[in-house]
Amino acid sequence: MLAKKLGIIGGGQLARMMAMRAHELGVECWIFSADRKDPAAQVCANWVQGNLKDASSILSFLDQVDYLTFESEFVDGEVLDALKEKKDIKTCPSTWMMKTIQDRLTQKELLKKYQVETALFSAASSVEEVMMFKQKTGACVIKARKDGYDGHGTFVLKSDDQKEELEKFMASYDCGFIVEKYIPFNRELAVTFVRGQNSHVARLPLVETFQEDNRCLWVKGPIDDSQYQTVFETIENLLHRENYVGAITFEFFEIHHELIVNEIAPRVHNSAHYSQNALTEDQFCLHVRAVIGGPLFQPKTLAKGFAMYNLIGKGNEVTLKPAPETWLHWYGKSENRPGRKMGHINGLGDSPEDALEKVTKAREGMTL
Amino acid sequence: MLAKKLGIIGGGQLARMMAMRAHELGVECWIFSADRKDPAAQVCANWVQGNLKDASSILSFLDQVDYLTFESEFVDGEVLDALKEKKDIKTCPSTWMMKTIQDRLTQKELLKKYQVETALFSAASSVEEVMMFKQKTGACVIKARKDGYDGHGTFVLKSDDQKEELEKFMASYDCGFIVEKYIPFNRELAVTFVRGQNSHVARLPLVETFQEDNRCLWVKGPIDDSQYQTVFETIENLLHRENYVGAITFEFFEIHHELIVNEIAPRVHNSAHYSQNALTEDQFCLHVRAVIGGPLFQPKTLAKGFAMYNLIGKGNEVTLKPAPETWLHWYGKSENRPGRKMGHINGLGDSPEDALEKVTKAREGMTL
Repeated sequence: MLAKKLGIIGGGQLARMMAMRAHELGVECWIFSADRKDPAAQVCANWVQGNLKDASSILSFLDQVDYLTFESEFVDGEVLDALKEKKDIKTCPSTWMMKTIQDRLTQKELLKKYQVETALFSAASSVEEVMMFKQKTGACVIKARKDGYDGHGTFVLKSDDQKEELEKFMASYDCGFIVEKYIPFNRELAVTFVRGQNSHVARLPLVETFQEDNRCLWVKGPIDDSQYQTVFETIENLLHRENYVGAITFEFFEIHHELIVNEIAPRVHNSAHYSQNALTEDQFCLHVRAVIGGPLFQPKTLAKGFAMYNLIGKGNEVTLKPAPETWLHWYGKSENRPGRKMGHINGLGDSPEDALEKVTKAREGMTL
Repeated sequence: MLAKKLGIIGGGQLARMMAMRAHELGVECWIFSADRKDPAAQVCANWVQGNLKDASSILSFLDQVDYLTFESEFVDGEVLDALKEKKDIKTCPSTWMMKTIQDRLTQKELLKKYQVETALFSAASSVEEVMMFKQKTGACVIKARKDGYDGHGTFVLKSDDQKEELEKFMASYDCGFIVEKYIPFNRELAVTFVRGQNSHVARLPLVETFQEDNRCLWVKGPIDDSQYQTVFETIENLLHRENYVGAITFEFFEIHHELIVNEIAPRVHNSAHYSQNALTEDQFCLHVRAVIGGPLFQPKTLAKGFAMYNLIGKGNEVTLKPAPETWLHWYGKSENRPGRKMGHINGLGDSPEDALEKVTKAREGMTL
């Protein structure tokens, strides 16, 4: 009955949560994924099976929809090229932006172009280039240009003794590398912006993210951002000038009261899952509305503090014991593998710390 | 991966919202309904087509699930009898409770048995019996014993001049009637209880409900319930003594600071939809957890006031314009018919009235 038909490429938890919000918003949602048991496919009758690297089946999927979005930035280049030609489908973010951000080198160059503070970096294709960079800057981080996540595709080089390991690391990727100066940060922060087709930008609260084994374990907020308004303005300028549409998340290192961008993701993001229960507008609602051209509103927080705790698989039997004043968001993955994000818990509190205590306690009551 | 498989009989909006919460809670959810385009079927890959009156197809649906619940109390008697025999499936509410409540006469008798205040009533099978009741009590309300909702199956008799109309009304139903004393109420209130298998009862806030053309138009709360604790205790006693499991909603007339039960519904209810955004535990989450045997917690309100506004079809083209600080819950019905509940809007505020103002304004921005 409603004219807005939204296609999502990908069937994981981000697509699942987008789809559920799309249902609520009256947007007809279609999922393109490999398996009917994928987290997003489970919650959507409208589902098309296909290979995410197969441009031709994605093109035929487009017959169902008017708008298209992604749950991951790592969409195959050929697919993006094919989508670029489909002028009758509104694709958000744009295929150009997807290509730019999925490559860590062009991502860094984009940040540099708009004077968004980021660690000193250089392209590198050999161990020698990396060692030369290290000689100038000291400890550094080598990242594969593509497909990195949760520490995969990343190598921290602190001593020349690691050269052999570095050689092995670089030999296992064929997409090229960037090398960046290592930032000895105080803490990691993140913020999600959502920009609409009408140029309005909704900014979610600044949050602290805590990683364990290179994976985000918890998020808490809001973090006082009064000293970071200039950073936000610089980022919003980038979004406007590039006519970015949709959700985009900036992950920062905070060092001596400065924010340095670690990386960006052109999509809804784990660090903003708290928004489902802590804000008047959550990231999924804002992203869906941005893509279909609806209005955006600046979200307000519903409590003085909020937190999110990731449910990361440990290979045990799953027991999900609910805890008071917390919200469980389970992803319905068919297998509980160690290190896999299986769900998350949101909580509110009188302060970020109070909320974190609640979700930590809720996590402790479960096994997985 | 998780052992809990929940079947829902019915594919409307109540099943849809239960299913979406079940997804989040990690409960594998199965829908039994007539059409793949039904509101609940749209949000659930696990769907079995069937006729809600066909006991044999419902029995084969049970092969998929461990727990069973309903979105409507008007489940066919034959189906309930068949379900009663399936001892390996946990059915909540019990088939006995479903039968008792779906018949307005036995529902009234249940209330009377536990001294829950309700209007004076009598069974009636003829116009003459009704007129005799009216002579004793004055204005009265005649209700078909089964299948009544939103004013359907209800006749208000205030004057003897209406006798001809009453005859026509009674001739169009063959399930028998009850006649009740008409209550000239000050306002209508409602409260939803959810009782778990562990006997714990979660009680949602008392709310005011406002009807237009016999349909609920809006709900606001919380309403001060300090003087009604005895009523709640009486109801909880009924639930414990009958070992009721699941959500159950009591709709009241308030007259001179007394609560008189108008009717009860053994399920999640339109008057508690606000709970999706106003409470730490919503009615869908509590009901699903009650059915599968999970713990229940007493919900807390997230703001000083909350409200819900129903989106009732007027036969116009649908335009869903979002409004700040409100949540849209669209049901995805394939046709917008006048009088049909198409969705609802939830809102929070500094008071019930403030929240109601927000959702009313949000409604005014839409057409349907």
